[in-house]
Amino acid sequence: MEIGILGLGKMGKNLALNLIDNGHQVVGYDRNSDTVKGAEKEGVKGAYSLEELVNKLSPRRVIWMMIPAGAPVDDTLERLSSILDKDDIIIDGGNSNFNNTLRRNEFLKELGLHLVDAGTSGGVEGARNGACMMIGAEDDVFDYLEEVFRDVNVENGYLHTGPTGTGHFVKMVHNGVEYGILQAIGEGFEILHASDFDLDYKEIARVWNHGSVIRSWLMELTKNAFSRDPYLDDIKGVVNSSGEGLWTVEEALKLKVPVPVIANSLFVRYRSQKEENFTGKVIAALRNEFGGHKVEKK
Amino acid sequence: MEIGILGLGKMGKNLALNLIDNGHQVVGYDRNSDTVKGAEKEGVKGAYSLEELVNKLSPRRVIWMMIPAGAPVDDTLERLSSILDKDDIIIDGGNSNFNNTLRRNEFLKELGLHLVDAGTSGGVEGARNGACMMIGAEDDVFDYLEEVFRDVNVENGYLHTGPTGTGHFVKMVHNGVEYGILQAIGEGFEILHASDFDLDYKEIARVWNHGSVIRSWLMELTKNAFSRDPYLDDIKGVVNSSGEGLWTVEEALKLKVPVPVIANSLFVRYRSQKEENFTGKVIAALRNEFGGHKVEKK
Amino acid sequence: MEIGILGLGKMGKNLALNLIDNGHQVVGYDRNSDTVKGAEKEGVKGAYSLEELVNKLSPRRVIWMMIPAGAPVDDTLERLSSILDKDDIIIDGGNSNFNNTLRRNEFLKELGLHLVDAGTSGGVEGARNGACMMIGAEDDVFDYLEEVFRDVNVENGYLHTGPTGTGHFVKMVHNGVEYGILQAIGEGFEILHASDFDLDYKEIARVWNHGSVIRSWLMELTKNAFSRDPYLDDIKGVVNSSGEGLWTVEEALKLKVPVPVIANSLFVRYRSQKEENFTGKVIAALRNEFGGHKVEKK
Amino acid sequence: MEIGILGLGKMGKNLALNLIDNGHQVVGYDRNSDTVKGAEKEGVKGAYSLEELVNKLSPRRVIWMMIPAGAPVDDTLERLSSILDKDDIIIDGGNSNFNNTLRRNEFLKELGLHLVDAGTSGGVEGARNGACMMIGAEDDVFDYLEEVFRDVNVENGYLHTGPTGTGHFVKMVHNGVEYGILQAIGEGFEILHASDFDLDYKEIARVWNHGSVIRSWLMELTKNAFSRDPYLDDIKGVVNSSGEGLWTVEEALKLKVPVPVIANSLFVRYRSQKEENFTGKVIAALRNEFGGHKVEKK
Repeated sequence: MEIGILGLGKMGKNLALNLIDNGHQVVGYDRNSDTVKGAEKEGVKGAYSLEELVNKLSPRRVIWMMIPAGAPVDDTLERLSSILDKDDIIIDGGNSNFNNTLRRNEFLKELGLHLVDAGTSGGVEGARNGACMMIGAEDDVFDYLEEVFRDVNVENGYLHTGPTGTGHFVKMVHNGVEYGILQAIGEGFEILHASDFDLDYKEIARVWNHGSVIRSWLMELTKNAFSRDPYLDDIKGVVNSSGEGLWTVEEALKLKVPVPVIANSLFVRYRSQKEENFTGKVIAALRNEFGGHKVEKK
Repeated sequence: MEIGILGLGKMGKNLALNLIDNGHQVVGYDRNSDTVKGAEKEGVKGAYSLEELVNKLSPRRVIWMMIPAGAPVDDTLERLSSILDKDDIIIDGGNSNFNNTLRRNEFLKELGLHLVDAGTSGGVEGARNGACMMIGAEDDVFDYLEEVFRDVNVENGYLHTGPTGTGHFVKMVHNGVEYGILQAIGEGFEILHASDFDLDYKEIARVWNHGSVIRSWLMELTKNAFSRDPYLDDIKGVVNSSGEGLWTVEEALKLKVPVPVIANSLFVRYRSQKEENFTGKVIAALRNEFGGHKVEKK
Repeated sequence: MEIGILGLGKMGKNLALNLIDNGHQVVGYDRNSDTVKGAEKEGVKGAYSLEELVNKLSPRRVIWMMIPAGAPVDDTLERLSSILDKDDIIIDGGNSNFNNTLRRNEFLKELGLHLVDAGTSGGVEGARNGACMMIGAEDDVFDYLEEVFRDVNVENGYLHTGPTGTGHFVKMVHNGVEYGILQAIGEGFEILHASDFDLDYKEIARVWNHGSVIRSWLMELTKNAFSRDPYLDDIKGVVNSSGEGLWTVEEALKLKVPVPVIANSLFVRYRSQKEENFTGKVIAALRNEFGGHKVEKK
Repeated sequence: MEIGILGLGKMGKNLALNLIDNGHQVVGYDRNSDTVKGAEKEGVKGAYSLEELVNKLSPRRVIWMMIPAGAPVDDTLERLSSILDKDDIIIDGGNSNFNNTLRRNEFLKELGLHLVDAGTSGGVEGARNGACMMIGAEDDVFDYLEEVFRDVNVENGYLHTGPTGTGHFVKMVHNGVEYGILQAIGEGFEILHASDFDLDYKEIARVWNHGSVIRSWLMELTKNAFSRDPYLDDIKGVVNSSGEGLWTVEEALKLKVPVPVIANSLFVRYRSQKEENFTGKVIAALRNEFGGHKVEKK
């Protein structure tokens, strides 16, 4: 199939190469023309404007956006909507908030365009060699695209989750679960690290990944991380968050679902990002007020 | 009544003066002889050894320990047990773990001595002018001492909680609740502090303390703290913990009582005490492994 | 001053009587005409339509809404906006989300109307005899109204928190803190209840309220509750939530403030409201899969 | 090698058969003589008393205990210690608390006996066909036994974690991590379940297990569980806990490691086990006291 990739960053370019490997024709566009040139060397047919991307594809066009969530997606859809033809398909392969996807779908549907949300997991490496996709789409649009999804994902690694919006929703929850699992692993190794025993974290991650109940890809990566740096001495304990954990908790709150583990995982990240612990200041000040406990001065 | 105060630190000395104000005779001992001399100037009859303390009191002796919890209490009880007379009374006014109190009571009971646990709240200021005490004691021992407890506490501010051990148990839970309340207040002010609004924290603490649902002594202290330092700029957000919050959680775990708020309050303190966030390092390393997310290097 | 009270439920009627006691003239309107009739018997000048309420007040009118947050407030403001005169003042005394207050203020400001948000704490009893109010308003509007706020609140019990919106914001955070404090108290008593000791909860709440660090109005109410029902045998452990705890957590998430205690307090309420624990089902099913641990069948 | 298996329950018997498959000679003992008879039919050499077990093995004996943690282990070690010969080896393959293992090792070492702790994961199925073991042992004892561990575990699935005690310690932390992961998965599916979308949980578990970041054995089991019962309608959401999660939190508390996720996972289980939510009762009663909010009566 002929596919237009919009956004040739780490994820987009790898997806393009993955498609080419599987016999598809890829036209690629990126705001950065050097990036387009780089991709051309690896077999992507380059486009240097959105219009050129659209023109180089023949209807029924399939344009797969691999761009940052938020305003960039809205801007791009606004522009695409005026140059695409009825029945063309746009796939949003980024981490858009599913509420935005639902809203955008309303707008595009009225123009006769089809929006597909393909929540993608597996990282950069997965985009290149086989990813995992949760796909929200109308039934007939999904059928039209299924061979492509079959090709770029690992075996058994794609699912038509339901109508447009469900792909990003299921991917969001996936990431929420990921937050909790990462925090659980982190806490386990912090206990090991705090104990008086002299332990080999890399070897422990290795054995936990062979035959144990918690064997998993993340445990394999844990082994890799400790192989590179046995005590993680070079790394600061600052953990960023890109939005999906937050959205998962926001959605859980709306649905009145108690999510202590996912929420606390997010709070741990927030605390790690801050220089100042104002809560701690208040408590330290109060302990000084009532008990004369010393505060640490700056 | 004649009372021996053992330990003339901030709490012990204030308690001694409180007793004297209320017409009791106080013999005071402290390991530090300068401390004893200081107390003598304020009306305390000084003793310069444990033996002198015991000898200066006439049976039925009442010795009130105001010393740090843990080994010092065990050592002192060991020594006292060999020089006191049958039926003498020892009050432990410190923050001993109630499990230790139960154990010590077994040992002292066999010698015919009576142990009373008087869990004390209200801080240094309360010890001087009226505290709050939760008192575990045999019924007749409590009756014997009740006038003393009536005198040194605020009106309505003492309770015979039950047999020996219950005083420290109820005081422990009191402190656990305190951990949760402090954290709730801290979180509230951190939200105010993070908002874009320009707010006066001292004034907010003031109004929250007059007529609102959360009016409390701690809110009064919050106002005082912000009066001294409007944004707590001089204070580091490091919060220590002296043991009772930990014991409350340990006891809750044994009793299978879910205590998310008290436990998380304790964890926030633990995190504030650490230079290094190993959990965060593990998660940052893993995010780098699977998503190529940058780690912050040291 | 002449004040129109819009909504004569528990809170509105008590506020009306409080105003009358303090020498103000009150015109009162409620959708339910029987409610208006009842209020007339207690000195309120009745109005049987919004229009009548507005007509019975002379400009510069002050209309104080005491109605449920959400759509009712929007509907009422819509209708009021077309019948009020420029410079009239509307006070929203309910628990509106401050984001809505900010939005509504934009709309009313363009019409020359003034919106004041008076976040009110102290419950039904406070509305009658002296409440606590956090008031967002333009400076001159606040000055115009200050005597009224002075009259209906306890001494020191009102604060001009800043421009319109800040009153509801500070009140929201107040309620968030309240969630945490309530949960801390609840956990404390659950530990007491689970222990083997035979304890008197009412007496413990009483002593904790005299001289201790955690003395507070809520502890006084705790004593009252246990006075009525020593083991709370008649009450189900289902805790509802009216929105402000949720909004506090949502706002904290947006501001990236870690609020483990407020959030977990909310989750405990959510769990208590549900018949079914789906998380628990999933874990029980998984423990059966990997360890053969028995699941409880329905 | 000749191995004595002590305890022929689900785990012990499967381990015995696993050993036999790998060419080892197994003498098996169980308190229940029918259990011994059953095992004899599958190739185990039966023993009908502890003494017979010991006598049927020739020194240097290796006795592998697969019995419930706690008192049974202490009793058995007490008895074994008087009938074994110097230098014999006892393996504790159960989920003993590592603090007990350290204590027992002190006692056995003085008698010249060697204690090995083999924390075992992988469930009943793993014991039969390849488990995962974390092994604490003196270096030379581990070397003596290594071929056995190599045989009964999956490839790469055993680790000499360090001296005696470390095996159970690392296994304990493994289970703590497991608590957190299970809760994260549970929360994710509860959000899916609460949403308005019509989703297929089995298919979602399937796709999450192919190429996604959270692919893992537990996700495979999640798919299996939903295959059996698509909405888990037949299962109650009651989750038991066998001790290791509790010990992990207790140990983290001692080490001052913040473990919000593991602790909250445990609290969720505790809450699920209780008929009555006393915390909830207290809060419901208090909301009634201050706000007139209705309580649900029993």
